[in-house]
Parts: sequence; C-alpha cells; structure tokens
Amino acid sequence: MVLRIIGLLVLAEAALLTLPALVSLIYGEASVWSLLITMAVCAAVGGLLVLVCRTKNKTIYARDGFVIVSLGWLTMSALGAMPFVISGEIPNYIDAFFETVSGFTTTGASIIPDLSKLSHGILFWRSFTHWVGGMGVLVFILAIIPNIADRSIHIMRAESPGPVVGKIVPRMKDTAMLLYIMYIGLTLIEVVLLLCGGLSLFESLVYSFGTAGTGGFGIRGDSIASYSPYIQWVIGVFMMLFGVNFNIYYLLLVRKLKAAFGSTELRVYLGIILASTAVIAFNIRNLYSGLPEIIRVAFFQVSSVMTTTGYSTVDFSVWPELSKGILLVLMLIGGCAGSTGGGMKVSRVVILFKSAKKEIKRLLHPRTVSYVKFEGKKLDEQVIGSVGGYFILYFALMIGVMLLLSFDSLSFEEYITGAISCFNNIGPAEGRLFGGYMDYSGFSKLVLSFAMLAGRLEIYPMLLLLLPSTWIRKGF
Amino acid sequence: MVLRIIGLLVLAEAALLTLPALVSLIYGEASVWSLLITMAVCAAVGGLLVLVCRTKNKTIYARDGFVIVSLGWLTMSALGAMPFVISGEIPNYIDAFFETVSGFTTTGASIIPDLSKLSHGILFWRSFTHWVGGMGVLVFILAIIPNIADRSIHIMRAESPGPVVGKIVPRMKDTAMLLYIMYIGLTLIEVVLLLCGGLSLFESLVYSFGTAGTGGFGIRGDSIASYSPYIQWVIGVFMMLFGVNFNIYYLLLVRKLKAAFGSTELRVYLGIILASTAVIAFNIRNLYSGLPEIIRVAFFQVSSVMTTTGYSTVDFSVWPELSKGILLVLMLIGGCAGSTGGGMKVSRVVILFKSAKKEIKRLLHPRTVSYVKFEGKKLDEQVIGSVGGYFILYFALMIGVMLLLSFDSLSFEEYITGAISCFNNIGPAEGRLFGGYMDYSGFSKLVLSFAMLAGRLEIYPMLLLLLPSTWIRKGF
Repeated sequence: MVLRIIGLLVLAEAALLTLPALVSLIYGEASVWSLLITMAVCAAVGGLLVLVCRTKNKTIYARDGFVIVSLGWLTMSALGAMPFVISGEIPNYIDAFFETVSGFTTTGASIIPDLSKLSHGILFWRSFTHWVGGMGVLVFILAIIPNIADRSIHIMRAESPGPVVGKIVPRMKDTAMLLYIMYIGLTLIEVVLLLCGGLSLFESLVYSFGTAGTGGFGIRGDSIASYSPYIQWVIGVFMMLFGVNFNIYYLLLVRKLKAAFGSTELRVYLGIILASTAVIAFNIRNLYSGLPEIIRVAFFQVSSVMTTTGYSTVDFSVWPELSKGILLVLMLIGGCAGSTGGGMKVSRVVILFKSAKKEIKRLLHPRTVSYVKFEGKKLDEQVIGSVGGYFILYFALMIGVMLLLSFDSLSFEEYITGAISCFNNIGPAEGRLFGGYMDYSGFSKLVLSFAMLAGRLEIYPMLLLLLPSTWIRKGF
Repeated sequence: MVLRIIGLLVLAEAALLTLPALVSLIYGEASVWSLLITMAVCAAVGGLLVLVCRTKNKTIYARDGFVIVSLGWLTMSALGAMPFVISGEIPNYIDAFFETVSGFTTTGASIIPDLSKLSHGILFWRSFTHWVGGMGVLVFILAIIPNIADRSIHIMRAESPGPVVGKIVPRMKDTAMLLYIMYIGLTLIEVVLLLCGGLSLFESLVYSFGTAGTGGFGIRGDSIASYSPYIQWVIGVFMMLFGVNFNIYYLLLVRKLKAAFGSTELRVYLGIILASTAVIAFNIRNLYSGLPEIIRVAFFQVSSVMTTTGYSTVDFSVWPELSKGILLVLMLIGGCAGSTGGGMKVSRVVILFKSAKKEIKRLLHPRTVSYVKFEGKKLDEQVIGSVGGYFILYFALMIGVMLLLSFDSLSFEEYITGAISCFNNIGPAEGRLFGGYMDYSGFSKLVLSFAMLAGRLEIYPMLLLLLPSTWIRKGF
C-alpha cells in the first residue's frame, strides 16, 4: 500500500513535468528532452509501482503515513533531480538532488553559481518544485485521488505544518481541495499583480511560485534587487500573506471575520513583522535614502526572512549586527502553523512562552491552578509537553546537523548559518547571500538535504526513517 | 524582612573578607587596606540594614524569596567589587563589578589583561568569590542563621540549581549544613592533593576554589597549561566531581550505593563525559603526541567545559570544528542539577529528550497512554511543561542578550560566544580563550553581568526583578 501511494505520487510528478516541458518547448530549448525523458521515467516507475503493488489491504497505520510522507518526498526529489543532470545544466547528481530537495522543501538554497546560464525550462521546473512542495505534495495528491481519502488522516498529520491540525471541513478530500483552491487563487492574484508591474509571464510565474511556496528560487543573481519598488512591494506583501495560517483565509471566505482577526497566532505574527520592521528601519536609517525606501527595504527583508522565503532586495550582510540578529531570530520563529513557511512556527513559540509565563505564576503563587490558553481554548498539559518535546528535538537535530557540517572545511559562521538556513527552510546562507552552497562538500550537501526534509516535514517523519524498528517491522 | 536578610548577607560578606585580608597581610601587600575598608563598609551597611529593618512580620512569600536571592547577589557583587577599585588594581568600577559578578556566579569571565600584576590578596578574594558563590550564598547563610530556617523553603527553591529540588533531609537547616560539609570536605581533599603535587598553599587554595565553584579564575595567564600532568589530572577529575548532583554524595555517605549509582542523571552525565572525551581524543589525535597526553587533554577540556568551569590546558581554538562543536554543546548542557555547574543541567535535557521520545510513541500509537519516567518516578505533565517553559525562557533570554550585545562593535562570533559563555556561567569567550572581556563596552559588560546572574539563578529570580509588578506591589 505504501509503495502504491508512492507510485501515484511519481505519476503525479510526471504530469507536473508537462508544464516546464511546455515552457522549454515555447522557448525552443534543448532542455525539453531532459524534461521529457524524466517524464517518461516517472511515468514508467510510477505505473509499475501502482500496477505491481495492488493490494486488498487498504489500511494505513500512523507509521505507514509517516513512511509514505518521507519516502514520497525522497523519491520525488530523487526523480525530480534528473532534468538538471540530463540537460547537463547541473552535471553533478548530488548537486542536482540538493537543488531539487531545496525546491520541494521550499528552502531555496542553491548550488548554482550563475543562474543566467540555465535554460527557461529548467528554471521553470526549479521554481515549480517550490510551488508543488509549498502546499505539500500529499495534500495535492489527496485532492486528485479520492479512494484513499478516508484513511489519509495519518498522512495529513505528518504533512500539515504546525502543532494544531485544524480540520477546516470534516471531509479530508474537501479540505485538501479547499486549501488547494485558496493556494491557486492567491498565486493567480500575485501573477496578475506582477504582470501589471511589467514583468513577463515567465518571470511573474517564477516569482509567484517562489513566493507561494515561501521558497525563494529566482532567475537573477541579485534576487529581487533589480526590480522596481512596485514589484518589491507586491512580492513582500505576498510573502507575508503566504506565511499566514490558511485556516484564516478559510474563515475569511466564510465571512467569520471576528474569528479570523481574533486569532492569537495571526496577531502575534503580524505584530512581530510590524515591530521588527520598525526596529530594523530605525537601525538602518543611515544606509538608505528616504523613508519610503528604508521602510520598503526593512519590510521586504523581514517578510522574506520570517516566512523563510529567502528573497532579498539588498545585501543585508552589511547591516548592523542588531538588525542581523533580529533577522536570525525571525528565521528561527518562522511562519504560522498551516502555512507554507518553515521554522519553529509562531503558534509553537506562543504556546511555549505562555507555558513559561504560567510557570512563573506557579512559582509565585504555588497553590493556584493555572492553565495555558491558546486561541481561546485551554490547552491540556499533553499538548504543552509535546510542544516542549518538539522544541528539544528541533534543537538537538539542528545541533546534530551543525556537528556533521563541522567535518567540512567551513568557517564557524558558515556551518552555523548553513545548518540554521537549511533546517528552517530559509535558503540563502548568511555571509554568502546570493547563491551559496556550491563550495560545500558532497557529504555536507547530503546532510543539508536531510536537514531540509526534516525541517519541512516537522522532523518526525524523517526521524522515523532513521529508526531501525521502522524497517525491521515492515520487513524491508 | 527582605532588607533585613540582605543586611545579614552583607554582614556575612564582611566576615568572608577577613580571609583575603589575612592573605594580603601575610604577603605584606598594600591591598590589605582596600580589603579592610570594604570590610568596614560591609559591616556598616549590613549592621544598619539589620538594625533598622527589625520587623515582627517574619513571613516570607515566594515572591520575597526570589527578590531576596536576586537583590542579595546584586548587593554582594556591588560591595564585593570595592576592593578591586580601592586598591586600584581594577580602576574602572563597571569592570570590577563585572569581575565580581563573574566570581560570585562562578562564571570565570575576566576583564583583566595581565593577572601577574594583581596582588595575592586581591587574587585570593577573586577566587574566593567563586567558592562562596559556588554553593550559593544563601545556602551558606542558611547554615549560620537558624531563625529563618523554617521559612526558607522559598529561598531554597529560587537558589537550588536544577529542576528537581531534592530535599536531602527534612529540616532545611540541616540540609544546608550537610551540603556545606560535603562541599568543604571535597574542597579540602583537592587542596591536599594539589599540595602533594608541589603547589604552594596559596595556589592550591585558589585552584580548589575555582574548581569547587566550577568558576575558573586562576592566577596565571595561560590557565592550567603550565602545570604538571598530575595537577591537571587532579583538577580535571575534581571539576567532574563538582559537576555531580550533591544528592549523590549524600547517598554515598549514608551508603545507599545502589540508589547513588542507579541515578539516571549521574549515568547520563558520566556517559556524556566519557563519549565526548573519546570522540574528541580521536579527533585531535594528530595534534598531540602520545595516548596519555591526548586523553588528558581531551578529558580536561571536556570536564572543564561540561561543568562550565572554564579552565583549560591547551588552546582549543585551533582544534577541528567537530571538537569545538562538541564542546559548545557540552557548554549548553552543563552540569547536573544540584551541583555548582551552570548551563541547562543534565536532568532537564534528559527530561526533554524523554518527552520527545514519548511524543514519537504517541504519534505512532495514538491510543496508548505513555508516561515519562525519570529517576524511577513517573513525572507528571506539569513538570514536563515547566521544563519546556524553562527551556524557551532560557533560549529567549540568551537571544535577548545576544541582541543587546550586537549594539557593541563585536564580531558575530564574539557576541554569540560571549552571550553563551556568560549566560551558562562558563567564562572564557571562545576565540579569545585566555582573559577575554576587556574590550567589551561598559554597556555590554552590564548586560553580561545580568546574563551571568540570570544564568546562575535559573532565570526566574532575575526575571522577576524586571517585572514592574514586583516593585509596585511591594511599595518600593
């Protein structure tokens, strides 16, 4: 059953490849062949898996759900790397794999030194992986494969970003479809707005994909720096929008305005963005000329880093340490739960701070009983404990990645920021803002690929892949 | 009542100053006057506070306990800095305050560029603050002031390092006395062993104080590097011993060997030291000659860093990044709860990992009920939640300190490691191993002083000092 679903995923990937192939065809590029070959391979592998793995047993256990998610992402990345290698535009397979994982996990870390040498078709595929990854390949697959819908709650749990799995509507399939429609809708609005700003359709699509997935792949070496202020504002605002919990949009759609704007997470999220923008704008006031530019620059960078997108309009490595420090903290916090952003998630941070506050209260008034409330509901201790558990795993894994990277001949700053950047699905390594990872060793790239997947899938699915019991019990 | 106890503390400090004054007198140094003047001031201030603040109301609330602890440490540090300034050996008061806080909090961070210029009396006082701070000034005061013993449970809670306040024997006063006897005993054994190694009494005392408090102040610019291997082994082993939960020693004293060696925390602690030593020894095998030296060097550094003492026998800034990374992780973990070591504490880390493990189990088998066990007992969710809350406060405060330091003109590495080092009461800043903080601005030194106190007092007491409600309600 597990393999069958992965087969379906690979078939879907084949279907997805038609779009970049089309782009390649329009621009009359040779890379169309690499995309077509990959399509054929995906179709063959996927078809084979689906046909061979017919089974009457349609039960999916929690463990299977996690295995499907992690193996699914790994398989799609492994196959998705093929066009890069076949077209010769990224000759090394490990590099291509890194780039594809970075795409699907919406990280945006890149090993490509010069983007201008890539063909349109390949660039499109690279950005398209962001968009596909953004909403989660499995939410996607859920929307088109009805027959596993009822058993898919476990997959959903492994996939959905954030601690609170809010079932928007009871039926899983409808949920997926709804999320998907909102996602497409927002993307289309951004495409139209970018077109109005004078960008070509190709550019508009690439940047909308990058924004929607909070990924950060672009087509120019200097990211968004050379675009007009209007374009920068559009992308900045949409990055922020894609970092919001999609439940909020659903609430807006059904006109539950009070519930939507009363959301603690939304308020904290917007509050952090506002406050950080203000502090940074004040801190960098001497570096740029004119209030509009200062605010635009500060807001864009804050929005980009908080949602873990990774676009930039200026080289913020020259900023004062305070501003850089704030950006680093924003990276760790990340977007809202239920958005395409990475990081710890705002809701987790809020829950942890509330439990810290409760702890102080308990120390001062040992006999009173106090609760942690979130979004108007009492949280039971179980949830708080599990958020605490997640938090330590998060740091332990990040430190583990740093230690593995330290085998490489990198500087202290490089391996610390590299690990943070990839694990939180941000993208660019600080210190080497544009581009970034080409000098890392193959081993480091594989470690970072793992980190990106673990960060994206909320750690547990990837961790299970490492547990021996997962494999032994399944008889692999 | 609060002020009265602080008065008693200051009186105790005056008494403590006799010892360094004696040393100064024996060596016939001019610094004896600075110590005597400080003694007089302490006696006057303390006496005044005790006499003026006579009160019938002897109830101490939890909040008062925290205020006593934090204000007590601040006052003692502020007064303890006087000898340095009066003697002219540290002319700047902020520098002297930093050095004293660093001493009392057993951090060992220093702003003194050349130790050889300091007189013996001042050096002795500097190291003596470690020893006094090590066991906690309040546990100390508890042992000599019987009349507040019954109400002192709240002070104890604020003071005792680590999440599990293990009451060794029911009566608080006896507990303090017992801890104190074990502490003196271990220190004396170390002094004798160091004397056997050919050190002078002065040197033996200074290094024993530094080890016992897991502080790290010494008298030579190159820390322990120029001493014999025997001395290095003695100090290395005793650092490890002072990082053990003192409950273990009590259990050994009453011959409950099974309970002592069965302690999860002890096993994890020793396991981490053993494993880290092995990995680092292998990693640095080409830098030193001969297995005995490699093991000694690796063990000494691991023991020093894990217990947050901060002595060193080699310049480990030239070690491979992997070894440096491991040391950084050990710094964050710190010693056992109920020891003089700083950091997160082993028991907290173990509890968090266990709750993470439970979380994974719960995801795989959603319907089974599982518990987190620690030291053979089920922990209730409350404890886990509070450890999680502590963890987020710990990181939030550390990040806050980093951001404040970033105002200073420091490099990325300097302010990150400075914050980690002071907040975890380790001492030396990485990158500038010996000495360290003289180039930091006055503001940064005050921030770091706060960080050292917050780290030492397990965050909450210092945090309360910052809350407006603490001051308003008390009518200050």
